[in-house]
Amino acid sequence: MQFLNDILSHLFDRGSMAKNKPEASALTSEELLELVMTTEGDVSANVYAHQLLQRFNGMDDDAMLGFFNHILALDLDANSLIAAAKAYRDSQSADDLAAISRHAEPRWQELFRRLNAVANGTVALVHMRKKLLGLSRANPELKRLDVGLKALMLSWFNSGFLVLKPIDWATSATVLEKIIAYEAVHEIESWEDLRTRLAPEDRRCFAFFHPAMPDEPLIFVEVALMGDTPRAINDVLKTPREVIRATDATTAVFYSISNCQAGLAGISFGNFLIKQVARALQRDLPQLSRFVTLSPVPGFRGWLNDQKPALHADIAAQMTSLDDIDDLLRQKINVAAAEYFLASSRADGRPHDPVARFHLGNGASLDQLNLFGDRSDKGMTQSFGLMVNYLYELDAVEKNHEDYSRDNVISASEAITALVPPPKP
Amino acid sequence: MQFLNDILSHLFDRGSMAKNKPEASALTSEELLELVMTTEGDVSANVYAHQLLQRFNGMDDDAMLGFFNHILALDLDANSLIAAAKAYRDSQSADDLAAISRHAEPRWQELFRRLNAVANGTVALVHMRKKLLGLSRANPELKRLDVGLKALMLSWFNSGFLVLKPIDWATSATVLEKIIAYEAVHEIESWEDLRTRLAPEDRRCFAFFHPAMPDEPLIFVEVALMGDTPRAINDVLKTPREVIRATDATTAVFYSISNCQAGLAGISFGNFLIKQVARALQRDLPQLSRFVTLSPVPGFRGWLNDQKPALHADIAAQMTSLDDIDDLLRQKINVAAAEYFLASSRADGRPHDPVARFHLGNGASLDQLNLFGDRSDKGMTQSFGLMVNYLYELDAVEKNHEDYSRDNVISASEAITALVPPPKP
Amino acid sequence: MQFLNDILSHLFDRGSMAKNKPEASALTSEELLELVMTTEGDVSANVYAHQLLQRFNGMDDDAMLGFFNHILALDLDANSLIAAAKAYRDSQSADDLAAISRHAEPRWQELFRRLNAVANGTVALVHMRKKLLGLSRANPELKRLDVGLKALMLSWFNSGFLVLKPIDWATSATVLEKIIAYEAVHEIESWEDLRTRLAPEDRRCFAFFHPAMPDEPLIFVEVALMGDTPRAINDVLKTPREVIRATDATTAVFYSISNCQAGLAGISFGNFLIKQVARALQRDLPQLSRFVTLSPVPGFRGWLNDQKPALHADIAAQMTSLDDIDDLLRQKINVAAAEYFLASSRADGRPHDPVARFHLGNGASLDQLNLFGDRSDKGMTQSFGLMVNYLYELDAVEKNHEDYSRDNVISASEAITALVPPPKP
Amino acid sequence: MQFLNDILSHLFDRGSMAKNKPEASALTSEELLELVMTTEGDVSANVYAHQLLQRFNGMDDDAMLGFFNHILALDLDANSLIAAAKAYRDSQSADDLAAISRHAEPRWQELFRRLNAVANGTVALVHMRKKLLGLSRANPELKRLDVGLKALMLSWFNSGFLVLKPIDWATSATVLEKIIAYEAVHEIESWEDLRTRLAPEDRRCFAFFHPAMPDEPLIFVEVALMGDTPRAINDVLKTPREVIRATDATTAVFYSISNCQAGLAGISFGNFLIKQVARALQRDLPQLSRFVTLSPVPGFRGWLNDQKPALHADIAAQMTSLDDIDDLLRQKINVAAAEYFLASSRADGRPHDPVARFHLGNGASLDQLNLFGDRSDKGMTQSFGLMVNYLYELDAVEKNHEDYSRDNVISASEAITALVPPPKP
Repeated sequence: MQFLNDILSHLFDRGSMAKNKPEASALTSEELLELVMTTEGDVSANVYAHQLLQRFNGMDDDAMLGFFNHILALDLDANSLIAAAKAYRDSQSADDLAAISRHAEPRWQELFRRLNAVANGTVALVHMRKKLLGLSRANPELKRLDVGLKALMLSWFNSGFLVLKPIDWATSATVLEKIIAYEAVHEIESWEDLRTRLAPEDRRCFAFFHPAMPDEPLIFVEVALMGDTPRAINDVLKTPREVIRATDATTAVFYSISNCQAGLAGISFGNFLIKQVARALQRDLPQLSRFVTLSPVPGFRGWLNDQKPALHADIAAQMTSLDDIDDLLRQKINVAAAEYFLASSRADGRPHDPVARFHLGNGASLDQLNLFGDRSDKGMTQSFGLMVNYLYELDAVEKNHEDYSRDNVISASEAITALVPPPKP
Repeated sequence: MQFLNDILSHLFDRGSMAKNKPEASALTSEELLELVMTTEGDVSANVYAHQLLQRFNGMDDDAMLGFFNHILALDLDANSLIAAAKAYRDSQSADDLAAISRHAEPRWQELFRRLNAVANGTVALVHMRKKLLGLSRANPELKRLDVGLKALMLSWFNSGFLVLKPIDWATSATVLEKIIAYEAVHEIESWEDLRTRLAPEDRRCFAFFHPAMPDEPLIFVEVALMGDTPRAINDVLKTPREVIRATDATTAVFYSISNCQAGLAGISFGNFLIKQVARALQRDLPQLSRFVTLSPVPGFRGWLNDQKPALHADIAAQMTSLDDIDDLLRQKINVAAAEYFLASSRADGRPHDPVARFHLGNGASLDQLNLFGDRSDKGMTQSFGLMVNYLYELDAVEKNHEDYSRDNVISASEAITALVPPPKP
Repeated sequence: MQFLNDILSHLFDRGSMAKNKPEASALTSEELLELVMTTEGDVSANVYAHQLLQRFNGMDDDAMLGFFNHILALDLDANSLIAAAKAYRDSQSADDLAAISRHAEPRWQELFRRLNAVANGTVALVHMRKKLLGLSRANPELKRLDVGLKALMLSWFNSGFLVLKPIDWATSATVLEKIIAYEAVHEIESWEDLRTRLAPEDRRCFAFFHPAMPDEPLIFVEVALMGDTPRAINDVLKTPREVIRATDATTAVFYSISNCQAGLAGISFGNFLIKQVARALQRDLPQLSRFVTLSPVPGFRGWLNDQKPALHADIAAQMTSLDDIDDLLRQKINVAAAEYFLASSRADGRPHDPVARFHLGNGASLDQLNLFGDRSDKGMTQSFGLMVNYLYELDAVEKNHEDYSRDNVISASEAITALVPPPKP
Repeated sequence: MQFLNDILSHLFDRGSMAKNKPEASALTSEELLELVMTTEGDVSANVYAHQLLQRFNGMDDDAMLGFFNHILALDLDANSLIAAAKAYRDSQSADDLAAISRHAEPRWQELFRRLNAVANGTVALVHMRKKLLGLSRANPELKRLDVGLKALMLSWFNSGFLVLKPIDWATSATVLEKIIAYEAVHEIESWEDLRTRLAPEDRRCFAFFHPAMPDEPLIFVEVALMGDTPRAINDVLKTPREVIRATDATTAVFYSISNCQAGLAGISFGNFLIKQVARALQRDLPQLSRFVTLSPVPGFRGWLNDQKPALHADIAAQMTSLDDIDDLLRQKINVAAAEYFLASSRADGRPHDPVARFHLGNGASLDQLNLFGDRSDKGMTQSFGLMVNYLYELDAVEKNHEDYSRDNVISASEAITALVPPPKP
């Protein structure tokens, strides 16, 4: 809330905290926590909450663990909840329903709400959740805290509140340095490298923002406007390259999509992003006729090693001279890739590849396999350099999405489906 | 979400809804509701939600009542909740806690969330809640719906998300016409009237906004910068009047504060507003030394008629010649007013006057009684024209607030406390 | 220049004007003028210029006349100029050319430049020129001052500096009240009336602004998006009327264009305006296929009375029952109107009608005569209610413009040209 | 002018140039020039002007020289000017004054005006002037062109049109990369280096912009907020360093000021800049009590070598061990420096040092000599590392400025004036 910091610093400076309350700086974080939960005064409560967040940010992992364990004491009372639920079962009254709401929620939920009310509180809570998720791996008892924190995040980051913004060379450095930091697919090595991705007229980038975190992108996608569908990442990222006029492009290539906030894990922003960006691009550049990704295949090599170790060994043996790989082996890899995408052995029947699950879940179709599309070490390590294109046909995405969501039907080009026998019934 | 409307209209125009789904326009609102709750496709779900909201907006009260009653079928299952609570009581596991969250919430909660995700969904839901609250009076069974809707609003309108903005003559007409419409204390009669309140350099106005409702103020306060504390509203609103230089003012007078959204009833925005505005003013105009309201006393005459009918009759009899009212009667009114404010007979021990409860709850103190401060019909009808000043001493508000919140201690000037014996123990 | 006012008030407040300079407030405007012209200190010079402008704004017409006459003493020295010109004729040197520049310019030119450097100086100078032009009518000796002032305005308001902005209901009240004040063709009677012209999605408005005058539109045009070319202003302005979807409109109707600044008389902004607006509209609404005006004919009745008094008398006699005017007379009026537009008797061969000269000069063609298109008193008085449509065919405007500019060729529809024999050679 | 590019590309795309005009692309630049000067159609004229500017930008130096020489043919006619001046000498009429204006201006002036009207025309003309100034050195006949071009620039860049903007880490990369490129005093080596100068709360930067060149700073100043006056640039720029709270700073140090546009040489922006920035800082941070520079002394060593070769040789000999330089020599350098600043041998009586002339001309006083304040190669080469502080006392700057402007009086601290006998009368 703007101006709030003024109020806070005023209060700290002038020592004008309500007289019957102790100074924040003299308190343990447990005492601060108690005050945040019990103080009635809105400004004082904010002062304590602000102080508590600062205290938290200064903690090491052990101290954070202690803090989280301390919070666990604010659990709900199951017996009260059971009583409320029984009462409501009989009465169907609003009061009893309200009692359920009250008793169904651990009190730490209210703590998180109060922390959020502080200036930049949302940013602080996203950071706190990142820490919580990290510590929960070794301390599963903390997972209970996230049940409510995630629910709050889902509510606060409701897609109705998100704002899509273009990111370009006119964007502030504050945001751009985050783009450099958060790019997760094809690393941005320098500001110069960033410039080549944002400044030319045939390059675009879009991000979702939340109004309470104006300097923090939530997710972003990088787009290359091209004359054709690229088969290798080098077609997109090589420098120098010939820049084309945006109005001459026919194809929008989504070549990188990165989630930015580890503290928002499990809150999905990607599903709308590509479709909104595609629509925004089509409005500005009506001549664009094709929306396609150039995507990595992060799980391919692991799956191959697991499922077809002989083939994996064959390929690995030939990896020293990629360009001379023989046609037969090429065909074998393609057939294996088609199987990797189309014939799941997972319990949920979904593809092994997480990127595939994302794009197919969005309603895209698997369009093209690009052997050695990514010759970087990372590309070779995760997929023998295989990249794929997912195609976003705007008129088909909803149908594809429904078919996939309900029946695990995967939309793929004929060239790919022809490579593999349909999954056994 | 921006661009969403493009997607929606695209879908409607091109009939590209997933093939196995019916066209929205051919459906009943019950069928639409079902689709909103069951559709997996994010875009399709939004299309249905958008359509449902439009359908709702076209309904008359009877149809809305039917709609709300229909929603009531989406209640929670108390038995499942009881089972989950029992399981959690034993296990203390995150999974069981998540089960509680799931089962403690009626499914209409999810409906509201999905409606909020639509473009302008928040505005639509605030409107829906206004209708719901209205219909609930005669149909108390609907009150259950608001248990969850209000909780969502509290979450979405967390004070951390609010933005304080100055409202002046450079503000857009879109917002200004709302200021005219929502002014609840001293009516704004025309654009010219509005101009006299916003354009002069000794007048200010501030409002809270939510990022998802950029054209809709939530609450606003009008401020007069003056050389002294006014004792009558005419000192503030008369036209023409001499405009003073803002840098010459010593006193900021909050002479009108209006909540704007009936659909946000019960979600408090006012507590921070005045304090933030006071701080913002002090930063811009460091010479300001006094922050004070000029406030109506809406409950005084009713209380007087009830508690002191003889005095009420006396005053009413003299009302034809206000300025000749005798000193004795004046004193009697003042004493009665002091009692009205300071000696509560309410169960909660709080003052009878709702405006008093608001400002005292904010940490202000009752500073001055202004007999016949408001000689308008409205003023005479509600309080025999009595107005009061509440004083916001920035260094004292937290202490006052705490004392009031905890112990019902009312901070008042000596002149007022001297008028009435202290409340009996 | 922003912050300048701070500096100015600081200087005035603290009396920190250079010690050897008198306080501005104690000076006559002639002494102030002298100081503006001679002070070397940039800040002091600005202080004096600021003070001089305030002094000017407080003057009545007589005082302004005295002030302007005083300035006339700052004339150039013709002998020095002649000497410089002779020197340059011989030398062709840069120094001598610079001497010409120096001596060819009266010193009042430098005065105007110094006044412009003050905060809001441009606004003040536009106001000063308005006064100068007004006083020049009765005092032609002042016309010399405008030779240079107009040249400065032409330089400062070079079309490269203008900014086209949409005006709509989200525009600030500061600008909107200017739109109400400056509308010169079809009066805007109230804020409600303004709302009907700006808020509906089938109404648009655009204005040119100069960066140094952000609250002052220079010229604006109002546009109705319609399904057909209107033949009467009532088709556009009647209330209530059915609003159409912007995306359903085929025709953009420029029904009012107003110059805002009397102090910028002779500085043309209109020529680019309509063409830029047409292009902007076409980009947003590609389905628009027709750009047309609905324009008054302000000189028609005067011309008719002058040239064809008998016909004028005939029509005037029938004016009481417009709708029953007989077909023969109708035809006579149309023929006369065609002659009025197409057969000039002016020395420059241009049409008699000033609005016609504006639109034809822009490259539009005269498309349609609309008898009794404007039945208001003003419309009847100036043109017997005749309105016309000028058509802007974007592919033809340049050709039309060139033909008209060079050869006085008027582009008109066949229906109109057929009404009148071509002008005699 | 916005949208103009649309019009231009439309015209080029559709070949809709007025039919009797040739296509721009088929023309020589001389033919284009002729068309720019003669075309009446506003849009066509802009098309040709746009094309001519693009042609110019593609030229090498020889072609530019040819182009400028070609323009020289558009000279004024001295005889017509003489005739007009004589006529005006007799008539004092506005018409004859207008004739002077017309004839006193070479026609190339009108060419520059027409080029400015194009989208981004101002940027293009600033670039053209940079080239013109460069070529004029070896081709002095071109200097005549700049007489008018500079006059236009002075008019367009009138200080009333400039906008002061803070530059910080939230500024767009488009502008920030210009800051890196244009920093002329203490080179910015990388984006990381830039970050250390803009992001910390005790660092500020401000620039002047012109509305027609929104991405191009004209001049900027970098400011360090410190607790004391620094004596060496390393006190300001060392990394890492301890960042102080802005509200704890007492001293604003202007440690670098850079003009950005070679094409605006001779158009002064710096005189207001520091004073405005000082005022802006004081408004935000009222506790700031001292505004001071840390400035290089670029002419010192050259002057010393010239005037006191023995001392220069002495110092140069000791340069290998700076820190052991003996006190006697130290004193000698300081005395020489005081003489360098205070005892001019220039014809105009101004100091030898250009930086001194700038700050003293602004009304600053010479406050402190800092031996070896800049130990970089550049610093040692130009001044044996000497840096100085100029003090901006806001209440004294006008008086200082006047004294300096009129009488060459240099304001300096007693410590410095004591070092040197006053200049001989």
